[in-house]
Amino acid sequence: MQKFVYSFNEGSKDMKFLLGGKGANLAEMTTIGLPVPFGFTITTDACKDYIAKGGKLDEAVVAEVYEHLAELEQVMGKKFGDVQNPLLVSVRSGAPFSMPGMMDTILNLGLNDDAVKGLAAITGNERFAYDSYRRFIQMFGDVVMEISKSKFDEIFDGQKKKAGVKLDVELTSEDLKEVITGYKALYKAEIGNDFPQEPREQLLEAIKAVFRSWNNERAILYRKLNHIADDLGTAVNVQSMVFGNSGNDSGTGVAFTRSPVNGENRIFGEFLVNAQGEDVVAGIRTPQPIDQMKETFPEVYARFVEVAGILEKHYKDMQDMEFTVENNKLFMLQTRNGKRTAAAAVKIAVDMVEEGLIDKETAVMRVEPEQIDQLLHPSFDAEAEKAAKLIAKGLPASPGAACGKIFFNAADAEAAVANGDKAILVREETSPEDLAGMVAAEGILTARGGMTSHAAVVARGMGKCCVAGCSAIVVSEAGKTMKVGDAVYSEGDFISLNGSNGSVYEGRVKTVAPELSGDFGKIMTWADGIRQLKVRTNADQPVDARQAVAFGAEGIGLCRTEHMFFEEERIPAIRRMIVADTEEERRAALDGLLPYQKGDFKGIYEAMEEKPVTIRLLDPPLHEFLPKTDEDKKILSEQYGIPLEKIEKATIELHEFNPMLGHRGCRLAVTYPEIAEMQTRAIMEAAIEVKAEKGYDIVPEIMIPLTVIDTEMEYVKSIVVETAEKCKAEKGSDIRYMVGTMVETPRAALTADAIAKHAEFFSFGTNDLTQMTFGFSRDDTGAIIKAYEDKGIFKDNIFQTLDQEGVGKLVKMAVEFGRQTRPDIKLGICGEHGGDPRSVEFCHNAGLNYVSCSPYRVPIARLAAAQAAIKNPRK
Amino acid sequence: MQKFVYSFNEGSKDMKFLLGGKGANLAEMTTIGLPVPFGFTITTDACKDYIAKGGKLDEAVVAEVYEHLAELEQVMGKKFGDVQNPLLVSVRSGAPFSMPGMMDTILNLGLNDDAVKGLAAITGNERFAYDSYRRFIQMFGDVVMEISKSKFDEIFDGQKKKAGVKLDVELTSEDLKEVITGYKALYKAEIGNDFPQEPREQLLEAIKAVFRSWNNERAILYRKLNHIADDLGTAVNVQSMVFGNSGNDSGTGVAFTRSPVNGENRIFGEFLVNAQGEDVVAGIRTPQPIDQMKETFPEVYARFVEVAGILEKHYKDMQDMEFTVENNKLFMLQTRNGKRTAAAAVKIAVDMVEEGLIDKETAVMRVEPEQIDQLLHPSFDAEAEKAAKLIAKGLPASPGAACGKIFFNAADAEAAVANGDKAILVREETSPEDLAGMVAAEGILTARGGMTSHAAVVARGMGKCCVAGCSAIVVSEAGKTMKVGDAVYSEGDFISLNGSNGSVYEGRVKTVAPELSGDFGKIMTWADGIRQLKVRTNADQPVDARQAVAFGAEGIGLCRTEHMFFEEERIPAIRRMIVADTEEERRAALDGLLPYQKGDFKGIYEAMEEKPVTIRLLDPPLHEFLPKTDEDKKILSEQYGIPLEKIEKATIELHEFNPMLGHRGCRLAVTYPEIAEMQTRAIMEAAIEVKAEKGYDIVPEIMIPLTVIDTEMEYVKSIVVETAEKCKAEKGSDIRYMVGTMVETPRAALTADAIAKHAEFFSFGTNDLTQMTFGFSRDDTGAIIKAYEDKGIFKDNIFQTLDQEGVGKLVKMAVEFGRQTRPDIKLGICGEHGGDPRSVEFCHNAGLNYVSCSPYRVPIARLAAAQAAIKNPRK
Repeated sequence: MQKFVYSFNEGSKDMKFLLGGKGANLAEMTTIGLPVPFGFTITTDACKDYIAKGGKLDEAVVAEVYEHLAELEQVMGKKFGDVQNPLLVSVRSGAPFSMPGMMDTILNLGLNDDAVKGLAAITGNERFAYDSYRRFIQMFGDVVMEISKSKFDEIFDGQKKKAGVKLDVELTSEDLKEVITGYKALYKAEIGNDFPQEPREQLLEAIKAVFRSWNNERAILYRKLNHIADDLGTAVNVQSMVFGNSGNDSGTGVAFTRSPVNGENRIFGEFLVNAQGEDVVAGIRTPQPIDQMKETFPEVYARFVEVAGILEKHYKDMQDMEFTVENNKLFMLQTRNGKRTAAAAVKIAVDMVEEGLIDKETAVMRVEPEQIDQLLHPSFDAEAEKAAKLIAKGLPASPGAACGKIFFNAADAEAAVANGDKAILVREETSPEDLAGMVAAEGILTARGGMTSHAAVVARGMGKCCVAGCSAIVVSEAGKTMKVGDAVYSEGDFISLNGSNGSVYEGRVKTVAPELSGDFGKIMTWADGIRQLKVRTNADQPVDARQAVAFGAEGIGLCRTEHMFFEEERIPAIRRMIVADTEEERRAALDGLLPYQKGDFKGIYEAMEEKPVTIRLLDPPLHEFLPKTDEDKKILSEQYGIPLEKIEKATIELHEFNPMLGHRGCRLAVTYPEIAEMQTRAIMEAAIEVKAEKGYDIVPEIMIPLTVIDTEMEYVKSIVVETAEKCKAEKGSDIRYMVGTMVETPRAALTADAIAKHAEFFSFGTNDLTQMTFGFSRDDTGAIIKAYEDKGIFKDNIFQTLDQEGVGKLVKMAVEFGRQTRPDIKLGICGEHGGDPRSVEFCHNAGLNYVSCSPYRVPIARLAAAQAAIKNPRK
Repeated sequence: MQKFVYSFNEGSKDMKFLLGGKGANLAEMTTIGLPVPFGFTITTDACKDYIAKGGKLDEAVVAEVYEHLAELEQVMGKKFGDVQNPLLVSVRSGAPFSMPGMMDTILNLGLNDDAVKGLAAITGNERFAYDSYRRFIQMFGDVVMEISKSKFDEIFDGQKKKAGVKLDVELTSEDLKEVITGYKALYKAEIGNDFPQEPREQLLEAIKAVFRSWNNERAILYRKLNHIADDLGTAVNVQSMVFGNSGNDSGTGVAFTRSPVNGENRIFGEFLVNAQGEDVVAGIRTPQPIDQMKETFPEVYARFVEVAGILEKHYKDMQDMEFTVENNKLFMLQTRNGKRTAAAAVKIAVDMVEEGLIDKETAVMRVEPEQIDQLLHPSFDAEAEKAAKLIAKGLPASPGAACGKIFFNAADAEAAVANGDKAILVREETSPEDLAGMVAAEGILTARGGMTSHAAVVARGMGKCCVAGCSAIVVSEAGKTMKVGDAVYSEGDFISLNGSNGSVYEGRVKTVAPELSGDFGKIMTWADGIRQLKVRTNADQPVDARQAVAFGAEGIGLCRTEHMFFEEERIPAIRRMIVADTEEERRAALDGLLPYQKGDFKGIYEAMEEKPVTIRLLDPPLHEFLPKTDEDKKILSEQYGIPLEKIEKATIELHEFNPMLGHRGCRLAVTYPEIAEMQTRAIMEAAIEVKAEKGYDIVPEIMIPLTVIDTEMEYVKSIVVETAEKCKAEKGSDIRYMVGTMVETPRAALTADAIAKHAEFFSFGTNDLTQMTFGFSRDDTGAIIKAYEDKGIFKDNIFQTLDQEGVGKLVKMAVEFGRQTRPDIKLGICGEHGGDPRSVEFCHNAGLNYVSCSPYRVPIARLAAAQAAIKNPRK
């Protein structure tokens, strides 16, 4: 016969699916002999049975509940509804996975007109007993019977008015008895029956309410969003109450076995004398640090330390515990693995390895990759931030903390920094022309743009703090002010930004530098020893490349060449190139750019030494380089003798309705081969020169962007190869080089077998691939994606976490097809997904050779790659 | 032993791959006893052998050539290089498929310093003999030995100057002898050897030149573009010369067995007395109609008619023949299936079935689907068009002919038509707001935009003549003029447009109405009996729907609902809907639109009777409906009391960088479910009412656009179903309906198995699917696609002919996945490819149920579907 109810001494921590997470841990603690208030768990099977029967508790379940209740009464020496020594219980839901949205705790179940007297006697506090009773009626009426909470509040507030008091606590026992009378009348009016005086009836109703709550809207949505199966069901825990508020030899506390803040190996927590768990949460009284119990409750404290030690050794992880002391006796109410900061996670993991408690694989699995981002950036001093004046909230676009004077254009910010100031660049939104100002500034604040706006992407690439899309601020770039409500901030005023949570503060807030501690280094070394994916970085500049190498990057997976063109001394040349009417004019302008590009690449090669560097040929539509304002157009015209009409004509001709799907990528190389020639020449000459100067064995990887068809790849490759061979011949060099492509259109993936005939490597550009596979533009669909996430249509932001079913299917096809044609083809990813832990796991499983991400995500990717390898060993 | 050379009496028409097309037909004519100047063919195998040997003729090949040459000399009673009676031959390439780009004809090979005298004797014309000789040296030098033609011209022009003459024909024999001396000196200087006097050497060099030309650049490109295998090789035909210019009892002609213009069953052609084939082509003398030969060459004519009859019966198709008469003797030089107009193709096919010559399948295969478009539109009277003044050329965006007064905006065009004028709408480019003017006009002319611009797409949908992207005209919409060079045309001036070839004429050109003759109807009926694909149409309006039904459409595959919103009386309501701040305001505006939409759908249902109708929910981004100019914004503001700021705010908020990838398709239904609700209500109520009024059994097919994920389809479907069920309940109707989706994002295709859980049908929207699979926007990439076609990167325009390797792979995946989940899922295509014959064949092979195309392409699709079924019988 199926068993529907387990006493706490019948289960174990491995029975999570049957008993729920909470029930399994309560059983585990009971089984290993720790002091847990006795009770029992009604299984998830009972829940499934209840649902299958259309909302009916089976007779067998009821019978088992009553049996275990009888056992509980016997163990506790108390009786349900007893006027002398009533058994009171808590009823809690407990699903296999922690699941907000379901029914919460009901305390003090078992109270009725008789038992309340018994409670008064036990606690010696009549007011408390009646307050508990009225709370229980309200909780039961609201949570179990779905009577509107406001109707209870009305009665309660009426009583306060009648008694002429302001605070709840000023009500007397007599007042509360009147409230109870009112509540019971309300209950009868709403439900049609009296409030159940029979505790068994209370219990069965509560159990059914928990089961019902498995299918309430919030719970269904939560499961959908978190991919929890709908047919798991929830368990119900029924546990005898203990009272931490039964006098000064009682109390309640929460504690961690180690510090969740910095990982220090000592008990860390709080304790409140003569109180229940709720009081700690309510925050009315200030709890004492837990080590004070050493003096006040020496024996209990010793016992608690012992229990905590047993639990940590048993679970082999830092524990987060709730406990109650009733008349100097310790009761454990809950234990679970504790949440912790990144710093704590790293220290605890390393310490536990050194203590022999866990192995290195386990340690590596214990640190959340996303979390360690916290360790790589400056942050605010916690106290200082708490005290600071918050003036607005934007999107946490790039983590870290920054503080400086505000400036409203790149030139002013640069000038200020040159003068020794610290600057915050404030813009409506940034554009590539702001690049120098962004480099100079401590942080960036924009009024418009989302998590993938220019400001956000570039700032993350630099590891620079950025708050984006802060719509509460009104920026006047001309007037050099920003307004927030009525407050006006002018150039030179100080503000502080927290890029990790989007906060904007007035004035200066103290920052703390990141410390890449020895423990961090150890974890990363262990991760490197485990992972099979290489980790490269996306970097366009030597300074970024060096930063990435410091973070452990093993190469550059994507060196964009367009950012280089925006520098002040170069942009005129590229503009001349764009407005050129003839190939000859264009070549002349390109000749002017060649030395700059060559210099760029030499800097990159020198920074990377012999590590592989993938350089992408020019990608963005040319109109991005043209001046936008009439003034800038005039300057260009005057300084370089280009007729204004020619600039206007180019602007009109290059206008595109959908630039994302327009004249960009290798389409530029097809229509203007001379651009690809110049870039190839710069790449090759730089490599040959650095090889000669430094002796590095450099093998440039030249990447052709946005390929759609094999014939296009063949055509552009022939331009590259011809130029590269010419350079080799001119310099008498035998340098090797590779030519590959970015797979970023669906068609490239679908025809990867044909394209691989001409490509020595593929790099998956999953940003564009996602845009085209979904037909979602990153620049335009922030609000839509938000709506889709809210409605549960998307489970993740598709631009942060790779969509495995759609985009991932294309990646897997391309991997398979590519290897069919060219078994040794090199495969990597260079979209933003390359730094997302779940996407890294996908890349590991898809069999890629490397991931590439922005410098500040390199450590994240290293750790994620190691975890992927542990979870999914490659054959 | 392998045989490398075939005499004409050894081959047959089925040996095309060995002898080439021309050689096979010459052999066939010889074998069935027709008079063909004797000769032989060197096989494609010899060509392959030549290439494999790195450009060397095998001894065996040379030996066989000499053997056949000896045979030829014997048969002709002439000798190579003979001073009395020289054998002269033509040498022609002949690949298995007609292939421009390869080496052309060399005539009179065998001439040398001796043979020229023989030729003079035979023709009795010394000047002709020496002119032939100098031409032969030049042809041999240029084509075989690759000496620059300009160097020969220099010598020739020098001689003319020296002789003091202007025209080539004024040069005497003596002059020509001097030219020959000069040519030979040039030859020696360039090649290092004397011009070969030995005819055998001439012949071998000519054969090698033909073989080499198989791999010249133009030939390789042509093969690439036309998918001809590179390893087929070419044959060489060596044929004894006959001379149509040997006196007044000689001549040359070309003829067809039936009229290639209208298909009439009589010999049709031209004949020139005392002339060679080249003279006909040169057009110096006017040839006589072929039936005049009846009088001038009665016996030869009778023989020719007999031969033509034999050839047509033999080939069972209309033949295009070349012949020469030498001294009253007929020689056939070539026969092949003749090219013909659509009208001729239809008549010939039908006649031949009725004559018992071919069966219906063959007849259906004989008509080019693309060609019949000619039969569906008005056209210009050929004589009148020839005489008209051409002022500019644009893109042939929508076929047909139109003539009318020019107007520069939709309102003026409409007003003029209301006044009884015929109008041509001339615009810089059109937008949806021009729709009414486009409907009213006879034709449309735009200065900007490509084959898939708004003007082009909409005009083709209407079957209305359109010339687009005519960059030679400068339109001043404000000034109401258009300039072409210096000429200025003002409002009210007449112009005429030929949408089939892009010509723009000044003034009025006479048009001829289309005649869907009985023969056309017969072919189409036969096609309908053969095809397995259904053919539907894309139509938004009853008038289009009726036109399509007249053309044989079996349903509507795509009824867009957005065009309906642009009508003058409705657009204010949709604009109010867009600028609404709250759902309530939006619902109020939508309520105003409901009666219109319902009326639209009733009209469509009535036009289609019980044929299936697929209606797509609103698709375009909302900003398309907003006024663009400040004036229109002001009008909207004033007329409807909407604050101007609100309109401006909406304009800014709705701006998108890449609208194609933005807030459109079912994303609108997710964010504004009330729009989908209104449209569903209109669709259902209209169907219920028409069903009640007319008794038609209507089953609306409601199509959700741009789906990317199953959860989205599920969400939007739930809105549709809920509303539809509400409508049914309100009206007490049991009407059936279907809900499906447009598969137009790569992701939808990749996850079609999941989406099919919620979709009862898929319609492939291959326009958007192509855009996203390639990352090519139709609006922006006209010039890029042109460049890609020019460079041979794309073989077809991807927006006209479905890309089978990439987009087609997605379609096939979606078909397979969709049927896995839902075996009876209905599958169709509604992109523009649905009317392209090769794409229709793909759809047949992919197993779709139907194709849908614009009304005027319905007959093309019917025919193409029948041909697909004949070529690829479904199991």
